[in-house]
Amino acid sequence: MKTFIEPSRSAWATITSRPQLDNLSLVGKVSEVLQAVRETGDQAVRQFTSTFDGVNLSAFTISEKEWEEAENQVSATLKTAIQQAAKNIEIFHQQQLLEITPIETQPGVKCWRKSVGIEKVGLYIPGGSAPLFSTILMLGIPARLAGCKQVILCSPPDKAGRLHPAILFAAKLVGITQVFKIGGVQAIGAMAYGTQTVPKVHKIFGPGNQYVTAAKELVQQTGTAIDMPAGPSEVLVLADDSANPIFVAADLLSQAEHGPDSQALLITTSKSLANAVEKEVLRQLEDLPRKAIASQALQHSKLVVVKSMEEAIELSNSYAAEHLILSVTDPESVAEGIINAGSVFLGHYSPESVGDYASGTNHTLPTNGYATAYSGVSLDSFVRKITFQKLSSQGLAGIADTVITMAEAEGLRAHALAVSRRLASSAKK
Amino acid sequence: MKTFIEPSRSAWATITSRPQLDNLSLVGKVSEVLQAVRETGDQAVRQFTSTFDGVNLSAFTISEKEWEEAENQVSATLKTAIQQAAKNIEIFHQQQLLEITPIETQPGVKCWRKSVGIEKVGLYIPGGSAPLFSTILMLGIPARLAGCKQVILCSPPDKAGRLHPAILFAAKLVGITQVFKIGGVQAIGAMAYGTQTVPKVHKIFGPGNQYVTAAKELVQQTGTAIDMPAGPSEVLVLADDSANPIFVAADLLSQAEHGPDSQALLITTSKSLANAVEKEVLRQLEDLPRKAIASQALQHSKLVVVKSMEEAIELSNSYAAEHLILSVTDPESVAEGIINAGSVFLGHYSPESVGDYASGTNHTLPTNGYATAYSGVSLDSFVRKITFQKLSSQGLAGIADTVITMAEAEGLRAHALAVSRRLASSAKK
Repeated sequence: MKTFIEPSRSAWATITSRPQLDNLSLVGKVSEVLQAVRETGDQAVRQFTSTFDGVNLSAFTISEKEWEEAENQVSATLKTAIQQAAKNIEIFHQQQLLEITPIETQPGVKCWRKSVGIEKVGLYIPGGSAPLFSTILMLGIPARLAGCKQVILCSPPDKAGRLHPAILFAAKLVGITQVFKIGGVQAIGAMAYGTQTVPKVHKIFGPGNQYVTAAKELVQQTGTAIDMPAGPSEVLVLADDSANPIFVAADLLSQAEHGPDSQALLITTSKSLANAVEKEVLRQLEDLPRKAIASQALQHSKLVVVKSMEEAIELSNSYAAEHLILSVTDPESVAEGIINAGSVFLGHYSPESVGDYASGTNHTLPTNGYATAYSGVSLDSFVRKITFQKLSSQGLAGIADTVITMAEAEGLRAHALAVSRRLASSAKK
Repeated sequence: MKTFIEPSRSAWATITSRPQLDNLSLVGKVSEVLQAVRETGDQAVRQFTSTFDGVNLSAFTISEKEWEEAENQVSATLKTAIQQAAKNIEIFHQQQLLEITPIETQPGVKCWRKSVGIEKVGLYIPGGSAPLFSTILMLGIPARLAGCKQVILCSPPDKAGRLHPAILFAAKLVGITQVFKIGGVQAIGAMAYGTQTVPKVHKIFGPGNQYVTAAKELVQQTGTAIDMPAGPSEVLVLADDSANPIFVAADLLSQAEHGPDSQALLITTSKSLANAVEKEVLRQLEDLPRKAIASQALQHSKLVVVKSMEEAIELSNSYAAEHLILSVTDPESVAEGIINAGSVFLGHYSPESVGDYASGTNHTLPTNGYATAYSGVSLDSFVRKITFQKLSSQGLAGIADTVITMAEAEGLRAHALAVSRRLASSAKK
């Protein structure tokens, strides 16, 4: 881990820098796969599944037998855990439903907004060694609460042509029945353009490797919305001398184990804490099955000692972390100063992993500094807030001068006439 | 106007099709301008302003004298109109502020969301014959309500190197003091990358021609957020035999006058209305100063007669109009069925132009079918909803099994340890 002791402002750019993402170099290859899926649909998907996933599938869908087996293969303990997490996520997201509250902005002019679920959405869940069933809860529950009519899910099959049972269990739990064994770029293409088997959707959600990320960015340019731009996961721990180095080290490592490009930062007002955390990280590292991955991530991790909490907050805002842990005496007061972050964890008993899985907040969050402009996934991500308005003829008469004056000043006569012709007719009655 | 009488489903794709946007062909040219601005800042901006706007500017900023003159040049009538519109827009958007309501998802686990304004935002306002000062209200008011700390505005200078006084008046009214006389691609580049004069922003809003649109899409790929993808403006009037052909024609024309590529559609259950509207459109067209533009737009406008209101609603949802006017007897009941639209106008006295200027709703809306996945601009567009959580040590103990079980099942031991190490320490106390 690289240590910065009371760095000058000029070093901030280095401290807050992220690994350079080079999705552009993938564009050619990824475009070819997308184009093939667009042109030949299932045929291309089948071929790429054979090439990239190493399995020849006759069907991408899940058989009744597979659904049943998955149900049996998930342990009772894991089922209970998933159900408890789902319950909390539902409670937290339920509250985000927008109530319709019409407002009369001036007499006879009534305006309101209504949340309407995006009709068709697609969720992408990566495969590989770690089956990210938790992400199914994070995306599937708000999709259901939002009233999305069609929610489909794609995830890459293993070499035996199967999905992990926990993936299927979680999907079923949140009411997703259209699950397809398709991964990578071909999955993004299938959902963006539709195939004989996979329905075309309006918006695609979910994490993925840099090929999947590049594919999402490309389909966004051809009209399919995506949840947000993506980059490697990251945590920033902001700590004072009340922090426990054992906890802080555990938090940094829980980020480092994600992948070699994960970012883990500590900003602290306490030099002794920084020293203790550094030692503790190396000690705890030994206990990890994913030690090799975490070690790589730690090579570009940073420990930063600053002079004051004000400076710590400012540097934290400048970094705009996906996850921000406030391991300080008075976390509420520090939280007041936070303006750039994805999700904030207050105090010594709120590790990031609680939010990753079960507290109720969403774990799909803006990385790579995107927290300066993007929110994490919420119910908002699955709806459109459509505006409505209704004017009475008196209401129109009352607002007419305003509209006509402004339309004429913008040189748009027909806009003015759409009002005045109605008034004329209304007056005639 | 092209007429479709009771078209079969197979004709729907034709009816709902938009003009093909060819922003891709502009990418090369637009990228060059962006790159130059990124590399040499003000120098490039100055050069492109000379080339594209035909004016050599020593400064892009607005002098004290220009601010004063603008104040004097706007008529009292227009000032009153702009102030009234601003008031309604403020009332409607004020209501969109998110209240912080912490929720205990399970004992000792407290979660909440907080809206935090995007720190730095940039607004682009096109120039040309029609000064779109109304868009300044639509973007500047929610930006201020959201608490954005720095709101800057770029708009192209005229040949005399000036901005329209109504632009400056509206900017000042909504509290924008950093206004720059910069237009086109160079303005988008300046706001995305920053120059010696123009501060770099996190998100760019506002309409523009296809060069501006292409530039916004390109800077989005390098990390600057944008309001939404853009296309030509459009209106769909959904009418039954209660509709007044004079009103409907006026509404179609108020869209058609925007530009040659504007879309104006009528879907109606009444064949006689369709006939009457067609005649009325031609009659009213004669009154318009922008007749030439409107005529071009009308060439690809469509009148569609359908068998039932159900079919009308379904076709309307399939089109996903930016503006949808419900000129029907019972607009509330029809509105219930609308799932895809940007903004909906109910009844015979709610023309689109009211929402364009003054009712209070936002006029920056999703075009080109994007209403299937995107909302119009609102206060939401100017904030991030950051999630927060705080667990007590008992709260952590209560959720520990759930988190540990899920983390282990996903193969992420360090995530589990971030919880269990805290419990161990907590138990020791």
